[in-house]
Amino acid sequence: MELLKKRILADGKNLGNGILKVDSFINHQVDPVLMDACGKELAKRFTGVQATKVLTAEISGIAPAVMTALHMNLPVVYARKSKPVTMPDQIFLTLTASHTKGHIVELIVSPEYLSAKEKILIIDDFLATGQTIMGLVRLTQAAGASVVGIGAVIEKRFEGGRDVFASLGIPIEALAVVTEMHDDKIIFED
Amino acid sequence: MELLKKRILADGKNLGNGILKVDSFINHQVDPVLMDACGKELAKRFTGVQATKVLTAEISGIAPAVMTALHMNLPVVYARKSKPVTMPDQIFLTLTASHTKGHIVELIVSPEYLSAKEKILIIDDFLATGQTIMGLVRLTQAAGASVVGIGAVIEKRFEGGRDVFASLGIPIEALAVVTEMHDDKIIFED
Repeated sequence: MELLKKRILADGKNLGNGILKVDSFINHQVDPVLMDACGKELAKRFTGVQATKVLTAEISGIAPAVMTALHMNLPVVYARKSKPVTMPDQIFLTLTASHTKGHIVELIVSPEYLSAKEKILIIDDFLATGQTIMGLVRLTQAAGASVVGIGAVIEKRFEGGRDVFASLGIPIEALAVVTEMHDDKIIFED
Repeated sequence: MELLKKRILADGKNLGNGILKVDSFINHQVDPVLMDACGKELAKRFTGVQATKVLTAEISGIAPAVMTALHMNLPVVYARKSKPVTMPDQIFLTLTASHTKGHIVELIVSPEYLSAKEKILIIDDFLATGQTIMGLVRLTQAAGASVVGIGAVIEKRFEGGRDVFASLGIPIEALAVVTEMHDDKIIFED
């Protein structure tokens, strides 16, 4: 997606150690017009998978997932990292390593909103090592539901996340695929 | 906003102790079409305030704030509750009590995205005791910026949050104002 790649080149920053800072338009400050365009494009790419629900993880996944869900006219569920008082005692919970936080985090979904009949489209801001998305896959499987697609705004191909999901045999889409980062150079696929 | 009130009556739940559960369409599962309509209505109500940026707090504020910002064509910043590695060392930080979490949380904004010249429109899912929104006001003031409006999807009038901000002399808007909750009854203003 050219618009997104241009924005990454203009405002993204390689902080080293594989960390791509996109805080000015995705992760802390959000450009809602760009997120809307990303959601529209992801919705288009997953037209054929017949998803019944979009699933993401708080926090940074929310904006792109809500926009994708808007364009697919589907509800979106975001896995919580702590259990709010409004959630029932019986929950789906899995543990995952957070690359950017440097520790283990919980991902929690209420069975109220993840039933066995759902066909889940997972959307997140980044596909990097695939740890968070794998957590979402485990939650879906724990509910007896199926994952029908995985979409990310940005993929860091060099972190290998895509390979983690190859065995699922489902479409995996990313709107900007970063293959290398060196100093102030961010290099895309193609 | 009639559409929202109807949805609250249909799917909202009074859990007691002033807690209104709207997890099926705002806080855990999100109805993106309803959030888009809420964002459109909030954008309309704040047309006159000449905001330059929307500010909210992760997590539940993100969906309505992003939708409001989309319809106002403004960037949106969400205050973080923990400092990610991509954030600089110098930050704006304030402490606030979380009603639903039952403990003190940090609200953090990077000075990169909150400068003295900004006119900030604060958007959140709930206006209840006003603690979280007051934290956002303090962050804005710490940056030397001004708050030009406060908008919430749902106001729990009986928790008094609105009074906290009276001295600011700015418009405060809520799309559904709950005045009382008794057992399975949720009563709106008017």
